[in-house]
Amino acid sequence: MVRLNEVRRNEVAVEPPASFDAGLVFVGIIRTPWRSRLECPRQGRRDGPICRIELYEPWVAALDGIDAFKEIEVLYWLHESRRDLVRQSPSSDGAARGTFSLRSPVRPNPIGTAVVSLVARQGPILTVRGLDCVDGTPLIDLKPDRCLFTPLAPLQPGDFETG
Amino acid sequence: MVRLNEVRRNEVAVEPPASFDAGLVFVGIIRTPWRSRLECPRQGRRDGPICRIELYEPWVAALDGIDAFKEIEVLYWLHESRRDLVRQSPSSDGAARGTFSLRSPVRPNPIGTAVVSLVARQGPILTVRGLDCVDGTPLIDLKPDRCLFTPLAPLQPGDFETG
Repeated sequence: MVRLNEVRRNEVAVEPPASFDAGLVFVGIIRTPWRSRLECPRQGRRDGPICRIELYEPWVAALDGIDAFKEIEVLYWLHESRRDLVRQSPSSDGAARGTFSLRSPVRPNPIGTAVVSLVARQGPILTVRGLDCVDGTPLIDLKPDRCLFTPLAPLQPGDFETG
Repeated sequence: MVRLNEVRRNEVAVEPPASFDAGLVFVGIIRTPWRSRLECPRQGRRDGPICRIELYEPWVAALDGIDAFKEIEVLYWLHESRRDLVRQSPSSDGAARGTFSLRSPVRPNPIGTAVVSLVARQGPILTVRGLDCVDGTPLIDLKPDRCLFTPLAPLQPGDFETG
């Protein structure tokens, strides 16, 4: 079962920083069939249910051209997650691992990433498959999947650096 | 050439929101060979140069177990990017596309994502290949690559939903 707010045996919480270093704006909202975190899939699946990504103004114009991509990377804000655990026990069995070796929603910056299949676009709304988040999750960013995208900008010196 | 701060022909800037919706903490810093954005590769390559990811306290304990993964997803804050363009012209040729159909660093929430090869870990420092960002870029998050990671948490109802 996903965590609601508890700290489990052998988990370690730290004092959260007193201030933030940067700010995010929510550019849309994600609509899924899951009304609580206890129902969500642990990871999205490509044959999962249709979900809806609704963009807010003034960001709708930024969707122009997205229809060219079958797969899109989605970044979203896991707004119900605590942020102070550095060691976690997903199985609640006393075995704990570092947060950065887990894809748990509980992290210092609770950002989820998924690669989803784009089914359709209608105006400010994308329908997709492959998400795993609770209904009402705030949207942070959309990008073409890196494997399908070729940069349009002119070449730069670093493009050729190996080592 | 990457943008420094200009708005190019046919690009569209919007009024940025008056306030932020969520805050980020920088959990580390990324060291790369690239001293300016004009030198960076447009996308990371797996045979690219070694880069270093240095974690800050109190987050070092969160690295525990990361050595088990050959590939790690890295989220970083593109701190030199403007955030107000909804249409961009990467080639500066007058052809503009929506920001969400580009992987440009210029976006409402300038978060870069990369999947890198983990070469080694020594204490708070990871050495990796596959990054594309400028030296000094703030680190936001690390996760095991989704293709290599199997959730440890107990099954949830959404795991079985298709549609």
